[in-house]
Amino acid sequence: MLTNRRTVRIEWGDCDPAGIIFYPRYFEIFDASTSALFERALGMTKFEMFKALPFAGFPLVRTQARFLKPTRFGDDVTVETSITFGRSSFDIMHKLSLNGELCAECTETRVWVVRGCDGAIKSQSVPDEVLAKFGS
Amino acid sequence: MLTNRRTVRIEWGDCDPAGIIFYPRYFEIFDASTSALFERALGMTKFEMFKALPFAGFPLVRTQARFLKPTRFGDDVTVETSITFGRSSFDIMHKLSLNGELCAECTETRVWVVRGCDGAIKSQSVPDEVLAKFGS
Amino acid sequence: MLTNRRTVRIEWGDCDPAGIIFYPRYFEIFDASTSALFERALGMTKFEMFKALPFAGFPLVRTQARFLKPTRFGDDVTVETSITFGRSSFDIMHKLSLNGELCAECTETRVWVVRGCDGAIKSQSVPDEVLAKFGS
Amino acid sequence: MLTNRRTVRIEWGDCDPAGIIFYPRYFEIFDASTSALFERALGMTKFEMFKALPFAGFPLVRTQARFLKPTRFGDDVTVETSITFGRSSFDIMHKLSLNGELCAECTETRVWVVRGCDGAIKSQSVPDEVLAKFGS
Repeated sequence: MLTNRRTVRIEWGDCDPAGIIFYPRYFEIFDASTSALFERALGMTKFEMFKALPFAGFPLVRTQARFLKPTRFGDDVTVETSITFGRSSFDIMHKLSLNGELCAECTETRVWVVRGCDGAIKSQSVPDEVLAKFGS
Repeated sequence: MLTNRRTVRIEWGDCDPAGIIFYPRYFEIFDASTSALFERALGMTKFEMFKALPFAGFPLVRTQARFLKPTRFGDDVTVETSITFGRSSFDIMHKLSLNGELCAECTETRVWVVRGCDGAIKSQSVPDEVLAKFGS
Repeated sequence: MLTNRRTVRIEWGDCDPAGIIFYPRYFEIFDASTSALFERALGMTKFEMFKALPFAGFPLVRTQARFLKPTRFGDDVTVETSITFGRSSFDIMHKLSLNGELCAECTETRVWVVRGCDGAIKSQSVPDEVLAKFGS
Repeated sequence: MLTNRRTVRIEWGDCDPAGIIFYPRYFEIFDASTSALFERALGMTKFEMFKALPFAGFPLVRTQARFLKPTRFGDDVTVETSITFGRSSFDIMHKLSLNGELCAECTETRVWVVRGCDGAIKSQSVPDEVLAKFGS
C-alpha cells in the first residue's frame, strides 16, 4: 500500500509559551500530509483534483491522536502517511517522528464528497480511477 | 464616523516561546475586527453580506502595523476599528490596547470586489447603501 | 461537576476554501475552552496559574474528536466543557453546538506537569487545592 | 549582501472561503523566512541561537506589506529574503513570487533583544559575530 513520507520544519510560530509545538498545529501538518499523499498517488494537487475529478473535498468525520514526545522549533520532523479505503470513507494514518523516534500519531476518518445537481454536498464512493492510482 | 470596539482574549495558543503574542495572530484579530465593523454598521455578518449585497469580499491590498508593547495570554485587549472610504478602496484603522495603553496599531487598505458575469473578481465602488449605513 | 459554557464566533479566517471551518481551528477553540474551564473554577487565568500554583502546564497526551455538522464564518457556536479527574491525568469533554444542535465533540486527556529542581518537566498529581475548586 | 531563497507550498488550510490565501498566513511565512535567513547565515537554527548567542529574540516593531496577486492552495511560492542592519534594529525584506511574478512583498523592522540580569528583555546592538556572518 502506498505510503508518503515528507519532512516538515517545526517553526517558532508553531510553538507555545512552553516552547513546544501547540498541538492544533499538528493537525494542520496532518491535513497537509493527507493532501500530499493524494498528490503523490494521483500526480495532481488538491486544487487540480477539484477540476479533474468528481470531487468536492474529503471532510474529516473523526480523528484521534496520541502525543508521545513534544517537538520544538527547529525540529525537522518526518511524517509518514498511509491510507485504507472503505466504501465511501477512508482512514488515514499519520506517524510523526523525530530522528527515528515516534512523537505523535493520528488516525483520521474522512469521506469523499461530491457536489450534487442541487449544489449540495453529498458523500459518494471513492472513484475507481482514484483507487486504482493507490493500487487498491 | 462609526467606530467599533471589541474585546479579544489573547489565548495561550496565540503566543510563542517568548510568551508573548506571535504577531501574525494580530492580523487574524484585525481581520475579524474589520468584519465586526461591517457587521456593526450593516447589521449582518460577512456570510450574510455575500447573499444580500453585490459583494465578493474586500481583499487586502496593503497593510502596515506598529507593535509598541507586547501582549500575552490571559490579556483581554480592546480593539478599536474605524474606516475611511475612498472610491473603490477604503482604509481601516485598528488600535489595540490593554488597560488603556496602546499596544499595536494597524492600517489596512482594502478593495470592494464583486464577481463579474464571467465569474472573475473585479473591484467596484462601495455600494451607496453600504456607505449610507456608515453615515458616509 | 462544574461545566463551563462559552460562545465563540467562527471567523472568516477560520474557514477553508469549502467555506466551512478548517478543523484544526476546532482544536484551537477546544484548547482555549480548557483554559476557560480552569479560569472559571480557579478564578485565575492560565498566566496567573503559572505564578500561583505548582504548575508548568497541562500538555495533551491524547485526543479524539467527531465532526457531525460543519460550521461556517458568522456562526456563534456554544462550547460546553466539563472535566473528570484521574490521578495525575484528567479528561476534558467539549461539546460544540450551533442553535442547540451538536456539531462537534472532543475528548482530551491531559497531564498536570510541574518543573522539577533540575528544570525538567514531570507529571504530578493535580494539587488538592485545584481539585477542591472543582468540587472534586 | 546575503539573500535567502526558499520555496513554500500554500496549503488548503492557509486559504479562506474565497479560495485564496488568508493574508495572516503570509506573515507566518515571512516570520519563518526571517528565521531561515538567520539559519542560512549563522549555520544554526533559532533554537540553537538562544543557546549559543546573547539572544532573546528579534521581536517585530513595525511591518508593512503589499499584496499584488493572490496565491492559492497547491501553489509553490518562492520567498526571497534579505536584510539591512542598523544599530540595534534591522530591516528584513521579503519578496514572495509565483512563477517569477511578484505576489506579495513585506518589510519588517525588528530589534535584537537580550535578557538582562534582572530577567527583563532589552534591545542591544546586533553582536559583531552575527554581523560578520552576514558579511556586514
